[in-house]
Amino acid sequence: MAFAETFKALSDPERRKILELLKTGIMSAGEIASHFNTTGATISYHLKVLKKADLIFERKEKNYIYYQLNVSVLEDIMLWIANLKEEGTNVKEE
Amino acid sequence: MAFAETFKALSDPERRKILELLKTGIMSAGEIASHFNTTGATISYHLKVLKKADLIFERKEKNYIYYQLNVSVLEDIMLWIANLKEEGTNVKEE
Repeated sequence: MAFAETFKALSDPERRKILELLKTGIMSAGEIASHFNTTGATISYHLKVLKKADLIFERKEKNYIYYQLNVSVLEDIMLWIANLKEEGTNVKEE
Repeated sequence: MAFAETFKALSDPERRKILELLKTGIMSAGEIASHFNTTGATISYHLKVLKKADLIFERKEKNYIYYQLNVSVLEDIMLWIANLKEEGTNVKEE
């Protein structure tokens, strides 16, 4: 799994904000853009990066494109971190 | 909290491997480097990035420097992701 791309995608604060917005449900690019002061082109670029990192899905409905969180990749990251943490706690100092 | 730096640090496969090594316990830079084919300078650079991102601690013991996982930052990331994953509930717990 391409963790490199996932973490790179997550390193940008605007992209993290997009994910936080999508947590409440699916949204169109326009709805997402309305929460930012940047250009539509910037939001499109962020959506492309998030999609390439498998953090979001594109969903076509009628003539509109909606974006949706991909929970399974978030679960993969959580598993990787949980695994690190598990044995990390064995060496944690009081 | 500087998530940008944390995620950027995690995006490199060698740095993730260093964290995986440290999960078994503290290690010196030399011990860490022995698991890689890259130069010591590269490992030093990775350790610097991980330290700056608060993902590891430096621990001095006698004349040696050891590195240790910082579990608390991993917990912060897990919390952020867990909060995203609570999709559909629309309720932030805290």
